[in-house]
Amino acid sequence: MSRAGVTGSAPTGSAPTGAALTGAGLTGAGGPDGELLGRVFLTRVLEPGDGTAGRWVREWGVGEMVRRLRGGGTAPAGVSGQRWAGLLARARQAEPERDLEVARAAGARFVCPGDAEWPGQLDGLGDGRPLGLWVRGRAGLRMWALRSVAVVGARACTEYGAHMAVTLAAGLAERGWVVVSGGAYGIDGAAHRGALGAGGATVAVLACGVDRPYPRGHTQLINRIAEQGLVVGELPPGDHPTPSRFIVRNRVIAALTRGTVVVEAALRSGSLVTARAAQRLGRHTMGVPGPATSAQSAGVHELLRGEATLVTDAAEVVELVGDMGDLAPVRRGPVLPRDLLAPGARQVLAALPGRECATAREIARGVPTTEDDAIARLYELGALGYVERHGDGWKLTRQAMTSVRGGRDVC
Amino acid sequence: MSRAGVTGSAPTGSAPTGAALTGAGLTGAGGPDGELLGRVFLTRVLEPGDGTAGRWVREWGVGEMVRRLRGGGTAPAGVSGQRWAGLLARARQAEPERDLEVARAAGARFVCPGDAEWPGQLDGLGDGRPLGLWVRGRAGLRMWALRSVAVVGARACTEYGAHMAVTLAAGLAERGWVVVSGGAYGIDGAAHRGALGAGGATVAVLACGVDRPYPRGHTQLINRIAEQGLVVGELPPGDHPTPSRFIVRNRVIAALTRGTVVVEAALRSGSLVTARAAQRLGRHTMGVPGPATSAQSAGVHELLRGEATLVTDAAEVVELVGDMGDLAPVRRGPVLPRDLLAPGARQVLAALPGRECATAREIARGVPTTEDDAIARLYELGALGYVERHGDGWKLTRQAMTSVRGGRDVC
Repeated sequence: MSRAGVTGSAPTGSAPTGAALTGAGLTGAGGPDGELLGRVFLTRVLEPGDGTAGRWVREWGVGEMVRRLRGGGTAPAGVSGQRWAGLLARARQAEPERDLEVARAAGARFVCPGDAEWPGQLDGLGDGRPLGLWVRGRAGLRMWALRSVAVVGARACTEYGAHMAVTLAAGLAERGWVVVSGGAYGIDGAAHRGALGAGGATVAVLACGVDRPYPRGHTQLINRIAEQGLVVGELPPGDHPTPSRFIVRNRVIAALTRGTVVVEAALRSGSLVTARAAQRLGRHTMGVPGPATSAQSAGVHELLRGEATLVTDAAEVVELVGDMGDLAPVRRGPVLPRDLLAPGARQVLAALPGRECATAREIARGVPTTEDDAIARLYELGALGYVERHGDGWKLTRQAMTSVRGGRDVC
Repeated sequence: MSRAGVTGSAPTGSAPTGAALTGAGLTGAGGPDGELLGRVFLTRVLEPGDGTAGRWVREWGVGEMVRRLRGGGTAPAGVSGQRWAGLLARARQAEPERDLEVARAAGARFVCPGDAEWPGQLDGLGDGRPLGLWVRGRAGLRMWALRSVAVVGARACTEYGAHMAVTLAAGLAERGWVVVSGGAYGIDGAAHRGALGAGGATVAVLACGVDRPYPRGHTQLINRIAEQGLVVGELPPGDHPTPSRFIVRNRVIAALTRGTVVVEAALRSGSLVTARAAQRLGRHTMGVPGPATSAQSAGVHELLRGEATLVTDAAEVVELVGDMGDLAPVRRGPVLPRDLLAPGARQVLAALPGRECATAREIARGVPTTEDDAIARLYELGALGYVERHGDGWKLTRQAMTSVRGGRDVC
């Protein structure tokens, strides 16, 4: 059975991901592959974050939902005929097998609820949970999201804001944290660049198809993120962003991460939507202060007058998000036995020196693999508690050393 | 009986203040005048904020305390001989009648606990309460302190900090609030100037004798404050500031006011002492954010990561400090019957037009009196709920109009 959307290197630590292009199909009763193909179909028909449709999916199941939309019958009780007709029109155009092929050609896979790579914290979005996520990049999304922080802010940022975003993201990357942002101009771009520049891990959550970088001026940046990090989105290949899609995208950024830092935001900025979503989800909400005279800091200051915490550097962010008890496995050593690690991750782990630090490049040479691949594995191993980043180097955690020496894993 | 330290114009709304230079003297059993002269004597002997000595005063009474220090006996139980000898040496040099004379020549009076002009909220300092306050200026300290906010910060401030202090203080003055600060270079000076420039009320609390402006470069500013506002201090005439006196002075700023705003402060800045004192006293503590890259904002950001509230303009400050229930009489109209007002204040009240706004200058012309005197009375009438400031003008509050029209006062 062929696997749709699996790139050359399968995500570490994740179980089989992808959908059958043939076999159990859209009209079948389901099964894992039918479920996945059904969800791919639904990402083409339903708008992201549509809570009503999400409720249908929950109540009827994916198979039944697909059947109703494919069948072209009358609207369910309580749904306007016009709305239902719009969905049926979209359903007639949907070609999920083709979407998976296009995605695969662009190096993207489709990850959906129930997959080993699915970040469980997205379930906090309830019926507004994504139907699935299109993912470009070699790292495992679930592992990376475990130790991630969102750094977001204004498109029209000041030099001060850009400086803070770069510095903060670099500092987070140096502490082994994954920086999540929206790939936009301004603060978002600065955050991604800060993480990349520090040889760190970053995730761009787009409001369009992951094969269609937006904004166009960030095509190179987003492709670079797909190489060294992950590019993620709810929309099927080729789909374009709209103002409302930017807004609903923000809930995914908030839900994926342990906390959201807003670097600069004017009053009524979209970044405040991300921050408020994070608050509703019980995540940490943080803001970087700026001059009280700066309109680009006014939205952040409004947040800080509420529940958000003021942060001025990466250490303060980590102090907050790292203190989440059972969500911070890295502080207490490995949480997954070594023999359950994916082969790629096991090889990288084996290439680490006993007690010394090594750079990602040195480790990659020892495997051997590419530096980008080594970085992807190292951040996953970091999330699992095996390794820690120290400045530019990586080393085994004390607990990992004990478990390696003792021949046993700490679970 | 002569009144010591009463300037040409007695403070409005305050009962007789001052001390007999003759008659019931230091060795007498007390009475109001003996008590006052005894406290003047003690300000020369004891350091401000000395809680142990404050306890003696509370337990023994002023008269007994003076007798023991004048008598030159042995140290009380639990007090080191060296310390007691130091106090006795100071006591031998003290000349309270002369201090009062020097103060009067400099236009200063002595206000002490029990006086009608004494700001009762200073009692929150417990045994660290000032023995009394030397006051220069025509306004009544107690009335002004009722509606006052401290604006403090770094001596070595940035242009941004100075700009914020001036703007904030001017905005507070325009809303009828009294701006209290320490008369220092940097933020303090900018706050005083902002209030003065807006034709507003300001109080400088000095760490030295009120006849001896410090820093010398602020001589003109402090003299101007004594004309339009109030200059206040615990130390007797001619006394000089020391590092520890600056620190203990800050508790008076915190205790006098409804809240403290720190505009700029480096880590370990003295302004943070004021803010923490305000917190301990249950007053509002506020901070103005700045760039996270600015060392002069680092102390403020530390405060804001704790209990302090972020503020960016005067409206936000007033929103906070104005919401203190029974401490905010002005919101609910006059709290003192008109016939209990001092004659100067009654005249200013009578000079206000029925429903229109008038500037302090226009009102002064109607009394007639000086503009500075009219300002002093207007802020007192504001604290009592009779008048409100609107931009550059003053008008009767609705409640005051009702009480004037109806011929009755609202109590």
